[in-house]
Amino acid sequence: MYAVILAGGVGTRLWPRSRKHAPKQFTDITGCGQTMIQSTVARLEGLVATGDTYVITGSRYAGLCTDQLDGLPPENILVEPDGRNTAPAIALACAHLQLRDPDEVVAVLPADHLIQDAVGFQNALRQAELCARRGYLSVLGIEPTKAHTGYGYIQREGRPLPVAGDLPAFPVKRFLEKPDEATAEQFLADGAYYWNGGIFVSRVKRLLAEYERQMPALFAAIDRIASALASNEHDSVLAEVWPTMPDISIDYGLMEGAQEVAVVPMQVGWNDMGSWDALETVIPRDEDGNIPVEGEILQLNSRGNIIAAHKQLVALIDVDDLIVIDSGDALLIAKKDSIQQVKQVVAKLQAAKRSELL
Amino acid sequence: MYAVILAGGVGTRLWPRSRKHAPKQFTDITGCGQTMIQSTVARLEGLVATGDTYVITGSRYAGLCTDQLDGLPPENILVEPDGRNTAPAIALACAHLQLRDPDEVVAVLPADHLIQDAVGFQNALRQAELCARRGYLSVLGIEPTKAHTGYGYIQREGRPLPVAGDLPAFPVKRFLEKPDEATAEQFLADGAYYWNGGIFVSRVKRLLAEYERQMPALFAAIDRIASALASNEHDSVLAEVWPTMPDISIDYGLMEGAQEVAVVPMQVGWNDMGSWDALETVIPRDEDGNIPVEGEILQLNSRGNIIAAHKQLVALIDVDDLIVIDSGDALLIAKKDSIQQVKQVVAKLQAAKRSELL
Repeated sequence: MYAVILAGGVGTRLWPRSRKHAPKQFTDITGCGQTMIQSTVARLEGLVATGDTYVITGSRYAGLCTDQLDGLPPENILVEPDGRNTAPAIALACAHLQLRDPDEVVAVLPADHLIQDAVGFQNALRQAELCARRGYLSVLGIEPTKAHTGYGYIQREGRPLPVAGDLPAFPVKRFLEKPDEATAEQFLADGAYYWNGGIFVSRVKRLLAEYERQMPALFAAIDRIASALASNEHDSVLAEVWPTMPDISIDYGLMEGAQEVAVVPMQVGWNDMGSWDALETVIPRDEDGNIPVEGEILQLNSRGNIIAAHKQLVALIDVDDLIVIDSGDALLIAKKDSIQQVKQVVAKLQAAKRSELL
Repeated sequence: MYAVILAGGVGTRLWPRSRKHAPKQFTDITGCGQTMIQSTVARLEGLVATGDTYVITGSRYAGLCTDQLDGLPPENILVEPDGRNTAPAIALACAHLQLRDPDEVVAVLPADHLIQDAVGFQNALRQAELCARRGYLSVLGIEPTKAHTGYGYIQREGRPLPVAGDLPAFPVKRFLEKPDEATAEQFLADGAYYWNGGIFVSRVKRLLAEYERQMPALFAAIDRIASALASNEHDSVLAEVWPTMPDISIDYGLMEGAQEVAVVPMQVGWNDMGSWDALETVIPRDEDGNIPVEGEILQLNSRGNIIAAHKQLVALIDVDDLIVIDSGDALLIAKKDSIQQVKQVVAKLQAAKRSELL
């Protein structure tokens, strides 16, 4: 099985640790000792060989991939001329993979998600691989733990597919965009809905066939790139063709309209680290009720604080439910409930052209 | 006029910026570009020559005095073998000064106070000098701006002294220890009470005479040290005599029992920087209502925060009335009303033998 890791994002919601020169996937957000992309690759150990692992990212991050991913062949770092969402990125990866083996299965994974139960994840991925080898376009479905309105959902049919393997897999009835709160509550109560974490498994040729059917212009462009791959015209063709690519996600451009889609449910402590408060579900509270990500905490009457402060001691006196993130050149102190406003902080810095802080 | 600057304190209330290796007087607490002792010396410019300025401090801080006070003669740094409160420290300085000119006037000043109106301060100090030359033991009286229970008070008599000069000076009726709240309110309403900021002016010989009368044992010890000063036995005599010194303040040991004491009232933005919230009265609020000491502030819906964070940007989201002090190896975040508890933080660090953070 191949793996294609999507590492082109420039997420700002984890500012000031996620930065333009090193977005969150290249950062050790949880203080675990590995960057998120390193954890993503490590999580595939035993399932995907390093030589079969590909990363697709922007040109300014190619060096970070080389530095952070030991043993990754340089030719497995695929560079997008510029960011164009997931449909073109995955298509570009398929153009490379079809030259190796179009019958092989590929797992597509975001570089910036956390998964706490690596064994459970591998079991689910193996099941998705089995389905893919049977011809399905597989997707991992994250069993919802709350009525989240920030994710897309996957609705399954009632009966499992008759596929071998240890875990159930279901036909997908439909993909759904982010719901409102009432709808999300309904999804949660129903039990037949999963969060879409953007982890797909398919034969390469099956994916390419979907592109050809649903996004023919994009497929034609990718076909031109694939033809140029063996020649030394690859760079010039890529530079010519890429700007014509649509800015469309794989979900919207391809998954929603696909037939024969299978979902493998999983409950593996998945977390997309969409904002700093997510650390609360990832890192156990200390005996005083604070969440120590990095740095030592010395507290007096202070609880529920998420603290990431390099190697510093952080002394807290009479403060509750703060998020404190120190990045060396910027220090964020936010009320936990207001952490979504970090986007406004970044917007202010952008407006002030403070690129050194972005 | 001589000046003796008391710089032996190891104040912990401004942790984590005030540290054992560099207590607050050797630190730029307000972000003004000068350490407190540098400001204290600068404030005397035109009144006291550098060669007539003495600093008394502990041996571990002698190097800091040399580094921070350009042009101070090395012999003007007087080293206490160990900290013994202000009465012995000032007596030791007098032992040195009487060899130069016992008829000259000396001003004794703490190294770690802020004074915003330097001109007003010099005028008051000049008036105190005039009184001292007339034989008085002079003290500067800080006109109270609130019913503070943390300071000693000086009560004056009703009529000014018949001394020349531009400012009034009054006979002191008595020195009073820290009052309770009701008494402090009464002092404030009365108008004849001043805070005692520990700034004294006197002829050297007048001070020594008070020591001889009120603290004869201490005077005898100082007399031995003075006799040894010219010889090369000074160090051994100091080492022998110093441990016998009582741990008594100049206020308690000498001022309270002195006769012919004059007080010169002043209103000069004096602040003893006893805790971090004092910065609120020293540093003007920015347009958003925060107090920027060091570091740039970017705020969303945040007010009343005191921020000292080196050269960092500090982004605040929905937080009010915090004190944030970053010292590079320790970060303090405290509710403003609870800042007195910083002493407990320091006590915890001491108990844990975390000397690197003290």
